[in-house]
Amino acid sequence: MTKMSRRTSSSDLHEKIRDLAVKLAPELTAIRRDLHRHPELAWTEFRTAAIVAQRLEELGFEVLTGPEVCSPEHRLGVPDDETLEQAHRRALDAGTSPERLAAMRGGYTGVVGILDTGRPGPVVALRVDIDALPIEEAGEEEHRPAQEGFSSAHRGLMHACGHDAHTAMGLGVAQILAHLKEELSGTVKLVFQPGEEGGRGALPMAHSGIVDDVDHFLGVHIGMGVPSGVIHPAVTGFLASRKLDVSFSGRAAHAGAGPQEGRNALLAAAHATTALYGISRSSAGDTRVNVGTLHAGSGRNVIADSATMLVEVRGAADEVTEYMASRARKVIEGAALAQEVDVEIVAAGSTTVMSCDEQLVRTVEETWRQAGLTVEPEPHRVTGSEDCSVLMSRVQQRGGAATYVAVGSDLPTGHHTRTFDVDEGVLAPGAQALAIALVRLLN
Amino acid sequence: MTKMSRRTSSSDLHEKIRDLAVKLAPELTAIRRDLHRHPELAWTEFRTAAIVAQRLEELGFEVLTGPEVCSPEHRLGVPDDETLEQAHRRALDAGTSPERLAAMRGGYTGVVGILDTGRPGPVVALRVDIDALPIEEAGEEEHRPAQEGFSSAHRGLMHACGHDAHTAMGLGVAQILAHLKEELSGTVKLVFQPGEEGGRGALPMAHSGIVDDVDHFLGVHIGMGVPSGVIHPAVTGFLASRKLDVSFSGRAAHAGAGPQEGRNALLAAAHATTALYGISRSSAGDTRVNVGTLHAGSGRNVIADSATMLVEVRGAADEVTEYMASRARKVIEGAALAQEVDVEIVAAGSTTVMSCDEQLVRTVEETWRQAGLTVEPEPHRVTGSEDCSVLMSRVQQRGGAATYVAVGSDLPTGHHTRTFDVDEGVLAPGAQALAIALVRLLN
Amino acid sequence: MTKMSRRTSSSDLHEKIRDLAVKLAPELTAIRRDLHRHPELAWTEFRTAAIVAQRLEELGFEVLTGPEVCSPEHRLGVPDDETLEQAHRRALDAGTSPERLAAMRGGYTGVVGILDTGRPGPVVALRVDIDALPIEEAGEEEHRPAQEGFSSAHRGLMHACGHDAHTAMGLGVAQILAHLKEELSGTVKLVFQPGEEGGRGALPMAHSGIVDDVDHFLGVHIGMGVPSGVIHPAVTGFLASRKLDVSFSGRAAHAGAGPQEGRNALLAAAHATTALYGISRSSAGDTRVNVGTLHAGSGRNVIADSATMLVEVRGAADEVTEYMASRARKVIEGAALAQEVDVEIVAAGSTTVMSCDEQLVRTVEETWRQAGLTVEPEPHRVTGSEDCSVLMSRVQQRGGAATYVAVGSDLPTGHHTRTFDVDEGVLAPGAQALAIALVRLLN
Amino acid sequence: MTKMSRRTSSSDLHEKIRDLAVKLAPELTAIRRDLHRHPELAWTEFRTAAIVAQRLEELGFEVLTGPEVCSPEHRLGVPDDETLEQAHRRALDAGTSPERLAAMRGGYTGVVGILDTGRPGPVVALRVDIDALPIEEAGEEEHRPAQEGFSSAHRGLMHACGHDAHTAMGLGVAQILAHLKEELSGTVKLVFQPGEEGGRGALPMAHSGIVDDVDHFLGVHIGMGVPSGVIHPAVTGFLASRKLDVSFSGRAAHAGAGPQEGRNALLAAAHATTALYGISRSSAGDTRVNVGTLHAGSGRNVIADSATMLVEVRGAADEVTEYMASRARKVIEGAALAQEVDVEIVAAGSTTVMSCDEQLVRTVEETWRQAGLTVEPEPHRVTGSEDCSVLMSRVQQRGGAATYVAVGSDLPTGHHTRTFDVDEGVLAPGAQALAIALVRLLN
Repeated sequence: MTKMSRRTSSSDLHEKIRDLAVKLAPELTAIRRDLHRHPELAWTEFRTAAIVAQRLEELGFEVLTGPEVCSPEHRLGVPDDETLEQAHRRALDAGTSPERLAAMRGGYTGVVGILDTGRPGPVVALRVDIDALPIEEAGEEEHRPAQEGFSSAHRGLMHACGHDAHTAMGLGVAQILAHLKEELSGTVKLVFQPGEEGGRGALPMAHSGIVDDVDHFLGVHIGMGVPSGVIHPAVTGFLASRKLDVSFSGRAAHAGAGPQEGRNALLAAAHATTALYGISRSSAGDTRVNVGTLHAGSGRNVIADSATMLVEVRGAADEVTEYMASRARKVIEGAALAQEVDVEIVAAGSTTVMSCDEQLVRTVEETWRQAGLTVEPEPHRVTGSEDCSVLMSRVQQRGGAATYVAVGSDLPTGHHTRTFDVDEGVLAPGAQALAIALVRLLN
Repeated sequence: MTKMSRRTSSSDLHEKIRDLAVKLAPELTAIRRDLHRHPELAWTEFRTAAIVAQRLEELGFEVLTGPEVCSPEHRLGVPDDETLEQAHRRALDAGTSPERLAAMRGGYTGVVGILDTGRPGPVVALRVDIDALPIEEAGEEEHRPAQEGFSSAHRGLMHACGHDAHTAMGLGVAQILAHLKEELSGTVKLVFQPGEEGGRGALPMAHSGIVDDVDHFLGVHIGMGVPSGVIHPAVTGFLASRKLDVSFSGRAAHAGAGPQEGRNALLAAAHATTALYGISRSSAGDTRVNVGTLHAGSGRNVIADSATMLVEVRGAADEVTEYMASRARKVIEGAALAQEVDVEIVAAGSTTVMSCDEQLVRTVEETWRQAGLTVEPEPHRVTGSEDCSVLMSRVQQRGGAATYVAVGSDLPTGHHTRTFDVDEGVLAPGAQALAIALVRLLN
Repeated sequence: MTKMSRRTSSSDLHEKIRDLAVKLAPELTAIRRDLHRHPELAWTEFRTAAIVAQRLEELGFEVLTGPEVCSPEHRLGVPDDETLEQAHRRALDAGTSPERLAAMRGGYTGVVGILDTGRPGPVVALRVDIDALPIEEAGEEEHRPAQEGFSSAHRGLMHACGHDAHTAMGLGVAQILAHLKEELSGTVKLVFQPGEEGGRGALPMAHSGIVDDVDHFLGVHIGMGVPSGVIHPAVTGFLASRKLDVSFSGRAAHAGAGPQEGRNALLAAAHATTALYGISRSSAGDTRVNVGTLHAGSGRNVIADSATMLVEVRGAADEVTEYMASRARKVIEGAALAQEVDVEIVAAGSTTVMSCDEQLVRTVEETWRQAGLTVEPEPHRVTGSEDCSVLMSRVQQRGGAATYVAVGSDLPTGHHTRTFDVDEGVLAPGAQALAIALVRLLN
Repeated sequence: MTKMSRRTSSSDLHEKIRDLAVKLAPELTAIRRDLHRHPELAWTEFRTAAIVAQRLEELGFEVLTGPEVCSPEHRLGVPDDETLEQAHRRALDAGTSPERLAAMRGGYTGVVGILDTGRPGPVVALRVDIDALPIEEAGEEEHRPAQEGFSSAHRGLMHACGHDAHTAMGLGVAQILAHLKEELSGTVKLVFQPGEEGGRGALPMAHSGIVDDVDHFLGVHIGMGVPSGVIHPAVTGFLASRKLDVSFSGRAAHAGAGPQEGRNALLAAAHATTALYGISRSSAGDTRVNVGTLHAGSGRNVIADSATMLVEVRGAADEVTEYMASRARKVIEGAALAQEVDVEIVAAGSTTVMSCDEQLVRTVEETWRQAGLTVEPEPHRVTGSEDCSVLMSRVQQRGGAATYVAVGSDLPTGHHTRTFDVDEGVLAPGAQALAIALVRLLN
């Protein structure tokens, strides 16, 4: 790829963007705190998505929601109707517009904002995720959200991975780009993705075709071991993953009077669990397996007739992940056979291995350096999984380039812990860096 | 066995009792249906106990409740404060008198009604249990409570073992005896015991001393495989049991990014489960073991830091039960050690082996025969456990005699199933049989 | 029960038998010690059977061996050719006649001696078992066989259940009856059964038809908790059993370089084991399960491609045993499926529940009493399994009667232990008691 | 890296070495076949070591054996006396000199040959391993050793990893260097190490101090995925490992008559196995775990009182390996506690992570290129473990440099399989390459 020539205005633009970001800082903190206070799980991000859509419209973006940006047949791990309904009502009670909610009925909480400059040019996209986690937030004094009064109002739910910050930064980028619209060519797509946790939201958004025309695609994550003030143009090491929802169905019986008449679903789940963790390591690549939750049985003196497990496997390469998933299914089926119970295994999410395009990484890195930002040139290595890989892969399959960048943030404790918190001082600089990269790629 | 002499009035009394019972039939059905509609779990039988106490007082019984009849330090498996509070409020909302509720605050839901004839004579006691089960009642048309509109109003709770019928029969007996008071000598104690399920209520009632002066003690159960119209003067085969509440505490970690930093409580519970069922059978007597429920973990991609299990073991003799309990503890501790998690094992209930006194059994049998009832002379053999054994054992240790009788009832499906129901036609005859036996033992 | 008339000679006969037995005592001890020194496992009792056959012929019995008394298609758990060959050679080296060995080639080590008095009368049979166990005998000074120089010459094998004593008593009975032949009517069959351990020998002998004409059948065991000097006319409590030989076949792989390419047979066996012990207890009757041996794998750093287990289940009733066997198969198949290995499950033995005919028991008891022996009238209750039940059942199905008697013996330690030994002082009295019973039944 | 100057004779030397190697080819094949026919396991390589020592002495090497080159207190996994004795006798029967055997009594089978040129210069060392594996060699026609009559004469043992070829190449190098002695300076040490399999032999040789003065150290392996004709100057990816010998001791009991009196060692081993494979993966580096063999129990109807397992864990870094070993111990101890059996865990071998010194790698690579050999410059990446790492680490800690090189060989099937075989055509070229490298490093 030949380096594209640069307009002379790039350093001016960088300055403008920095100024805009500085002014935005208080607002981004406010947005983040509001979202932090109202965490919403996958496919129930009604209030969050409504806020995003509202703001994007105000800024002049064309806003797409509903099945148009989330292919119905590709949604994974959608909660049951009652759960959706409750979340819907909660959002309504919190003052969300009934019209916006109507557009998301059934859990279609993905939002895409499109800013078409009207001038020919590339299509660039930024993806941020918006969902929270089923973690009970800490109430301790030292936990800043508790101390400053913006901790989760929804018991048992928490923004413990920084997606509140991602959403705030995404809206900051929107604001900056809206301001600069007249100086840009091409089209910007801001993708606000639901259900990143569990790897559920990227697949249906990818299948909606919404990123099929994207030339340059950025994903972003805050923290992940990178300190405040530092940015990485590429993150590597994400494992591919498969999520399985497992339900064993047996037959209840009185544990004293006729245990032999039961078919023990709890025992099947226990055996499946011990065997799942024992799936062989692979020399073909790193693997993971976890039974995150197990719920079984109805009473102490009853042979349990039902058991459910949330399972996930991961792998450093797609074939390794496939190996793990295939072994997991066999292990689960074997446990069911041994206990003579039925079992249902539902695919509930998946992510692929992520790969960042080297030339795009270099372009982003160089641009940030020119803008005076503190960049680590080496890819930041992490583990875990991130379904942004699915969107990136879609872009790459259609000839576009993609990378996943890290915005550093000092963290009091690790991701997915009850005392997780971000350094709010990085929200505006993060939005600035992302805007700089997008603007560079547009031109 | 020397036959005791009989007053000439016994056949007259039998006739009176039968007539009273016949008249009571509609009321007993009504009581049973009201209770069926409002099932309450162990230590939260606020509404039930209040109704019982109210009725006993109206009938002239001295009524004891609270810690006086439930030794505080011997209560097992008491729910947490919040659960107690909710149940309390539910009973209040349902119109239960605040004064009665105040006397039961903290879950002291045992009630004892005492009828002292003022004439010297033996102390005889009848014990019925009053608690329900955590089972979701069937909604199908063929299930009579659903069809006739008295199925459980409390979702997930159900009288699925007939304790509603026991309570109704107990109140029927109270009414009959109150009527006959002037013709009787000695003292009657009617013991309405909470928390039979899980073996939680008998121990504290026994330790309160309330049955220490009892000469003749009857426990009763409906159904259990005996058809409508038949009664058994003795039930045998109950296994002794021990209930254990087990909590594993580990350390959470991200299942992808750092699983090795976790300490997996779910995995410990799974291993404990597989090993618990594998505790060796014993040639010293029949045994049982069950992990009735297992709940673990907070999210799919988190190493589970907590797991709880409701466990029970049983044995045909107390030393066999002790063997099972001791092995269970070791197995659980071993699983915790292996996964490097902490574990807490709380004794949550226990029953002893039940034994019925032969002479009392013969007396009851003969009395029933003389009264023209259809009696099966052979002990009815069951399995399962029943903490009435604890009260019986207390009586027996102090020189009294005890038996546990069965009132037959055709059943659509087995005990502890969601379509369980009793034949209401046996409530009045059951009360009649119990009253006849008590009256005989008083004289 | 109608008393059968008696010849006047019965007390004379009893006296004769006692005298014969007293004289036989030293010889029986010598036989027992010789057999103790040369223990042989199921289907390899070549030397033992040859000695038995030789002795019976000398005493005038017609002797049957080979497939005639052991139905080929019903033999279970026959060792492989190499093992048979080695045992064969060992017997040859120990001086066993080649002709006798030829008749037993392939492990047909059952021997039946028939004494036809030539006078019409009933057919009575006595069955003794002749095989040893794979137990390493103790070398300690306090162990009498070690001290007196007759402990096992075959490393790893031992008569640790008293079958050496049974065989000696059986030959003692043969000698007594041969002596009395002219005073008897009817026919005597002495059945020397191989392979009792593991329940392997009775089934093919039963299917050979050799006991089909038997009117009265006795089995016998020494010890079992009955003290020296006491005999029981009936033993009860034996559990039915099923023996399973299980072989898992997987795929080897280097445990470091490519573990994922392996299919782990050892892990399958481990999971099967944990699940086998966890098969539910049954309220329909006592059960047992055991994985007695497990051998798996070839080297530390290789994923094990093979694993074998010797498994047995037992039950207090045939349907309970069937339940256990059926569950065991499912559990094993489930473990194989889970680890994606193949498994072969071979039925390697079975015993049925034993039942002794009450009238025969009473006759034997009374006869013994009349002969002045110390008899316990109550059935002796044991647990464990005994395939004599299969022969007894065959006799009973064809209208004959059967019982299984106990000859008491003080024991230093329990059956199947490495310091097991019998009280040799009971051999002659045991033979006497058995002979008395058989003679009574003949007349 | 500064290029070191070279003597002008290097290309002459290379030619001489090649000529010598060509002539040696038939002899090396003969040696390899002789060793292949007589495989010997760790610490019993009596015949092999005697052949090596004899040959080295004939070539003028100073030869060290016995505790002098194998620190007694650091030997791991030494077989029991009986096994040692049998192997000793087998070697004696095969014609090994009694004097040589005497020097190795107790399993001191390490041999070091020292060639001191008498001229000042560096100390260079080559290490080859000499032990075989407990694998039953294939008898199929297609397996060349079977076809050409040199397959293993020792049933159940086999050179299935090419150590026979290593030993042959090592003796070829000895011969070449002995020839060139007058043209060299410095000292050569040829280290023939026993017990590489299981990681048992390197540690005691390292602790003997025999490599403490080595400046340049080479280890070598044949095959490992590298084709015939290609050599690699460095191999990477070996995992560190820890070997554990585990013995559970319980209490035997009759499985029918009193299973509850047993303490089940087999069941403990089964639970330990299922939990060992389930030790958490680590994000800190690749891991492995294997239970390679499990042997438990004495008879089908006995609760097993003993069980032994050969276990190994591996890790991509020493702290990861330590984590695995620590977790393995806890898991095993937990299983013992749960089954109330005793357990002994013996450290039976260990390897560290291997690291090759870059400058030495470059020197070797360049030398080989100059000699016209086909070299792959990139390190050859493998998995598995190799205790040569322990010797290399010892050299490196004392300031020397080390690398581990691969001599390619086409293989019919993978290492550690029963049809493993090497391409004998690479033995002489392998010796040539090793000699060239050593000569270069001496000068």
